[in-house]
Amino acid sequence: MTYRAPVRDLAFTLESVAGMADVAATGAFPDYDADVAGAVLEAAGQFSEEVLAPLNRIGDQKGSTYANGAVTAAPGFADAYRQFAAGGWTGLSASIEAGGQALPKALELAAYETVHAANMAFGLCPMLSLASIEALEQVGTEEQKAKYLTKLVSGEWTGAMVLTEPGAGSDLGSLITTATPNGDGTYALNGQKIYITWGDHDATDNIVHLVLARLPDAPKGPKGISLFLASKFAVKEDGTLGDRNAFRPVGVEHKLGIHASPTCVMSYEGATAELVGQPNQGLAHMFVMMNAARLAVGVEGVGIAERAYQHALAYALDRRQGRSVWTAEANAPIFDHPDVRRMLSVMKAKISAARAVCLSTGVAADLARHAGTEEERRRWKGREDLFTPIAKAWSTDIGCEVASMGVQIHGGMGFIEETGAAQYYRDARIAPIYEGTNGIQAMDLVGRKLSMDGGDAAKALIADMKATLVDLGKLYSGKPIERFATAIEAVEDATLWLLDQKADPNAAADVLAAADAYLKLLGDVAGGWMLAKGALAAKAKLDANDGDPVWLQGKLDLYEVYAANVLGHVSSRLAAVGQGGDLLRRMTVDALAG
Amino acid sequence: MTYRAPVRDLAFTLESVAGMADVAATGAFPDYDADVAGAVLEAAGQFSEEVLAPLNRIGDQKGSTYANGAVTAAPGFADAYRQFAAGGWTGLSASIEAGGQALPKALELAAYETVHAANMAFGLCPMLSLASIEALEQVGTEEQKAKYLTKLVSGEWTGAMVLTEPGAGSDLGSLITTATPNGDGTYALNGQKIYITWGDHDATDNIVHLVLARLPDAPKGPKGISLFLASKFAVKEDGTLGDRNAFRPVGVEHKLGIHASPTCVMSYEGATAELVGQPNQGLAHMFVMMNAARLAVGVEGVGIAERAYQHALAYALDRRQGRSVWTAEANAPIFDHPDVRRMLSVMKAKISAARAVCLSTGVAADLARHAGTEEERRRWKGREDLFTPIAKAWSTDIGCEVASMGVQIHGGMGFIEETGAAQYYRDARIAPIYEGTNGIQAMDLVGRKLSMDGGDAAKALIADMKATLVDLGKLYSGKPIERFATAIEAVEDATLWLLDQKADPNAAADVLAAADAYLKLLGDVAGGWMLAKGALAAKAKLDANDGDPVWLQGKLDLYEVYAANVLGHVSSRLAAVGQGGDLLRRMTVDALAG
Repeated sequence: MTYRAPVRDLAFTLESVAGMADVAATGAFPDYDADVAGAVLEAAGQFSEEVLAPLNRIGDQKGSTYANGAVTAAPGFADAYRQFAAGGWTGLSASIEAGGQALPKALELAAYETVHAANMAFGLCPMLSLASIEALEQVGTEEQKAKYLTKLVSGEWTGAMVLTEPGAGSDLGSLITTATPNGDGTYALNGQKIYITWGDHDATDNIVHLVLARLPDAPKGPKGISLFLASKFAVKEDGTLGDRNAFRPVGVEHKLGIHASPTCVMSYEGATAELVGQPNQGLAHMFVMMNAARLAVGVEGVGIAERAYQHALAYALDRRQGRSVWTAEANAPIFDHPDVRRMLSVMKAKISAARAVCLSTGVAADLARHAGTEEERRRWKGREDLFTPIAKAWSTDIGCEVASMGVQIHGGMGFIEETGAAQYYRDARIAPIYEGTNGIQAMDLVGRKLSMDGGDAAKALIADMKATLVDLGKLYSGKPIERFATAIEAVEDATLWLLDQKADPNAAADVLAAADAYLKLLGDVAGGWMLAKGALAAKAKLDANDGDPVWLQGKLDLYEVYAANVLGHVSSRLAAVGQGGDLLRRMTVDALAG
Repeated sequence: MTYRAPVRDLAFTLESVAGMADVAATGAFPDYDADVAGAVLEAAGQFSEEVLAPLNRIGDQKGSTYANGAVTAAPGFADAYRQFAAGGWTGLSASIEAGGQALPKALELAAYETVHAANMAFGLCPMLSLASIEALEQVGTEEQKAKYLTKLVSGEWTGAMVLTEPGAGSDLGSLITTATPNGDGTYALNGQKIYITWGDHDATDNIVHLVLARLPDAPKGPKGISLFLASKFAVKEDGTLGDRNAFRPVGVEHKLGIHASPTCVMSYEGATAELVGQPNQGLAHMFVMMNAARLAVGVEGVGIAERAYQHALAYALDRRQGRSVWTAEANAPIFDHPDVRRMLSVMKAKISAARAVCLSTGVAADLARHAGTEEERRRWKGREDLFTPIAKAWSTDIGCEVASMGVQIHGGMGFIEETGAAQYYRDARIAPIYEGTNGIQAMDLVGRKLSMDGGDAAKALIADMKATLVDLGKLYSGKPIERFATAIEAVEDATLWLLDQKADPNAAADVLAAADAYLKLLGDVAGGWMLAKGALAAKAKLDANDGDPVWLQGKLDLYEVYAANVLGHVSSRLAAVGQGGDLLRRMTVDALAG
């Protein structure tokens, strides 16, 4: 099974759903237009199909390996990475000054979907470099930019995010790695870090670690954390590499999936480091990286889902069993059995919705920086902030769900590793966990994002969805309209209820008990909104004879599939939103016992 | 992490929810009473905890192995199997004449839940022996019973179900293995079979294969299939073993999970076999085995979910991160975070519901055979038939979902294989696939089970649920009542709509498009009914001071958790029930393209 990059759908989603025209209209991306986007997506898709996808299975089988204090990438991965960097794929959105191409973030995300789909374990390496680039662009000194940023943008070196410790995962505030001043402006890092993705490898000469640690006498907890940069090799004045730094991997984890992505346990033993940004502002600086990475993880969810979907679709067209109720053909392709067609249609609908949610978040991020007025930038920042936890959590849940449906469509073959469907099921499972578990995303949504500016971002979203609902009346009547209307109402009810609860300090547990359901509600409904916008855009193109009419009509039908199979979930989400913390508190260990 | 058999909960579910008193009242099980049940569950639980659970991880790591035409069980498994047989666990429900203990099926299922939870790969071996016992008890000749059945019941030999071929999985009608008369009353089997669970191993001296094949000149399709028995070694008149038969494994599959369960490709090369039952009635006879196996697979789903739940609960009590909103404790166990408590509570609620659905199906099976009157037996048979696809599909989906939540609760640790949570996630994934995929179960439900006797079984279920709803008014008011009432209405609406559609030959695709959602609807609501019955029983015990009040009160709260988190699903199920086949038919390859 080969992967085919969904270039047409990515371009359609960017232009006609996520709203790239608004990004282009800012004038901040003079090199960008829809043709450039098409060319970038085509080229990225080709690289993903031809270079990355063929390595996916061997990466799973052989994995990356650790020996004697060093990690070796899986067979073929180091060479593929160097081709990737040479192709300019690590610098799509970086600034021209840093050697990048200054293209919109949203386009970069769309291009990277194909990378993650083709080879999720590979994609993590540049994904974390991009997050490091983001941090250095925003808070690095000119010297740091000259010394490190350009090499990250060119892809000559890779970046790693070094946050987690054995006792500090979701609660980074409790980390204990120390940074002691060396007296020459540098610091010595001491401590152990875990879950360091691509923390070591042999694909590049150097690796730049962005490390959270505590300065001496720093305040306890999250306010005493600073961000440091530690380079695997010292970088001399002329840019050449010097001595090996005092940090090293001490092992790689044996994981359920993404075997080719080395997950390192790292030991810092007096490693030389520079401060990045302000002392004790490490968590804030880290969140620059983290938010970029969270959105990228959402795109990973979409990518792995697309890959699983394509694999299952190909199997469903090939595998023959039983008589079709539609064609009356004996020994028909299982694609012609309604229950299989239902699974594939729902998979496709969810992928399309999640793709559009993620790319819309990317568009919001671009506009939050480049929109014409302060007020517009504030509004788009609100949308970006609101959508980031949804893009991360909702899309990665869809990644797992679709990968599981992909296994199911294969029947017994799905459980056999050689088939390949099982790898997607295993690989997909990490995305709801890392860069903040999906539970953390939900808490971030109800705890911070929802109530920013008195709930303005959520209210603006509701208003935008209502506007689409009005337009949608031109395409459908009856259930497809009623379901979206009910869904918007549910979001409105839940939002107002949560904003009320948040005003009551005694209701903190009620808000947290609602978090997961509220995120899922917003995701389900925002996803429906995206498909509705897609249907409207497709209808306009149909009317203008612009594009393949079957495919465009499919966008209209896809919204209906989603309305029938997903939008109905709102009543269950609402029930769970309102369950209250007290009921959960009563579920003690004794009550839960066997 | 050690597994603790939930003996108290199994006994409570059997007696107070599934209705074992009705089984005892038939008089067909003179040796059975609640004390016997308790003793059996206690002993089974102890064996599962002490012998089977400790082998689960090594079974995953080493797996069973194939070399030179023979399979070797994973380390420790052959010895454990012999202890299992010596303990009498293969003969719990078999007849006294065959050497069994003639206990109710429902009790056997409850005891086996602990086996599957402790070691799912191990449990498959006796599970398939039980299915073979069922078939021979019902359609074997006296000679076959004397020769084979007693050895299966004693566990000296194991049984295997040999159905699937490369071109015949969900559609067994297209199988091509042949059975040619040898002229002496025996037959020669020729063909290749796949996915033969425990088809070969070294745990017993002999293995009895029940094989589907075609007689010469048999009708094409499903009506030309017969059932044969092929013994790995010939059995002489005195019961000792003679020559090796001409069938052998040619390999074992490399699978996502259940590594210790050998999934054999088997080759029959003139293997000597006996006819079992009537010629060309093989599929009907096979369904005797299959229905027993389907219910047993549902119990596997419950078992693996319970194991994953226990593992996650232990981790949540041990792992500390962040401040509790309830206790204000810093660095609190993550169990004290509402979103983690929500996950554990929902896991527990779904497990309890699925356990009760499966054991109620077992009770229905016992009563379908042993109830006092023809009318009662017919009614219970209707319940058994209606519930079997639900027990299989709905419970195994819960197995996967709960195993996935178990991974999630572990955070990053969940993705590390050494933790153990990932194994449950991998193992659980087979259960929705084998013994008829869950899509096949849904088609069986709407295609056959629903419309038996004009829909009597579904209507009787709805009436029973309504009776419980009335009683439930004594325990709750408001939402917990409204949600169950709405849910019952949804089942009623969907059932009547489907019965209408079934009367219309043009609506076949609409019925099939509804199948999955209808099964899930029935499962969700039947599960709620079970927890409601549990809450009522717990209240009666509380009022009588009979048992641990915290645990009993937990049953009342558990129903509320389920009502808030699961019963709300009915609106999404209803929407999908009515989506119609035409919408799916329009989702062609071109419409679905990227």
